[in-house]
Amino acid sequence: MVDILHRVGIKSSPDAVYQALTTPDGLAGWWTRDTEGDGDAGGVLRFRFGDKGGFDMKVLESVPDKRVRWEVIGGPEEWIGTTVNWDLRQDDDYTTTLFKHEGWREPVEFMHHCSTKWATYLISLKSLVETGEGAPDPDDTKIDNFN
Amino acid sequence: MVDILHRVGIKSSPDAVYQALTTPDGLAGWWTRDTEGDGDAGGVLRFRFGDKGGFDMKVLESVPDKRVRWEVIGGPEEWIGTTVNWDLRQDDDYTTTLFKHEGWREPVEFMHHCSTKWATYLISLKSLVETGEGAPDPDDTKIDNFN
Repeated sequence: MVDILHRVGIKSSPDAVYQALTTPDGLAGWWTRDTEGDGDAGGVLRFRFGDKGGFDMKVLESVPDKRVRWEVIGGPEEWIGTTVNWDLRQDDDYTTTLFKHEGWREPVEFMHHCSTKWATYLISLKSLVETGEGAPDPDDTKIDNFN
Repeated sequence: MVDILHRVGIKSSPDAVYQALTTPDGLAGWWTRDTEGDGDAGGVLRFRFGDKGGFDMKVLESVPDKRVRWEVIGGPEEWIGTTVNWDLRQDDDYTTTLFKHEGWREPVEFMHHCSTKWATYLISLKSLVETGEGAPDPDDTKIDNFN
């Protein structure tokens, strides 16, 4: 089992980051504009990326200003059953955001791509919360021929 | 043992990417301006980041247009003995660049930071090779309170 790990510090309150991770409007501001569903624990969020498909996430946990956990229940085969974990913590002016996408079965080339791509979306999340403007799909940062 | 994985596709020849990974001038254009040393196999490269310290890398392997491998021989304790691996491959218009920083003993918080930070430097490398302009330290993308 191999994991994708990331860390960003966002100059804002934990609540602002939490809202961007748990509301369709917030999520649409940094990951993909085509987001719908329910971001509370027990809910399902649907993320779509044009003709590239997308992901359905079951919200396993949603603790205000602290933690969000999703299980991937729809999407590419490599993603099914993996979990995406967000831990928030205030450090002075920053909300330190620890990200872990865990449970990948193999470190396939697609995982390398997803690791870099997640970093660009985390920087988009940081930008959204700090400035009001993120870079969600289809205006996201293109990194390679997988897009 | 846990690894940091990334993938970028660079619209250029493998040779242009290889030059950016093996010459002090190339490396100074995307990672840190304060780079010196010898990027050929057996050489040592010194990367410094102002008052944040830096890394010394022994070049283990350097195969034109295909592969570069470094071993970390100086720097933060968590980095010592880890290896940084670059694999290049032409895919149509792109040079697919697979990156692996392997041999981390524990998935510590600093590793989360380094994973995100490597992604920003890989995007800087892509930009340097495609446009002639990268974003090396001290003009790099700041991601958190570790910088």
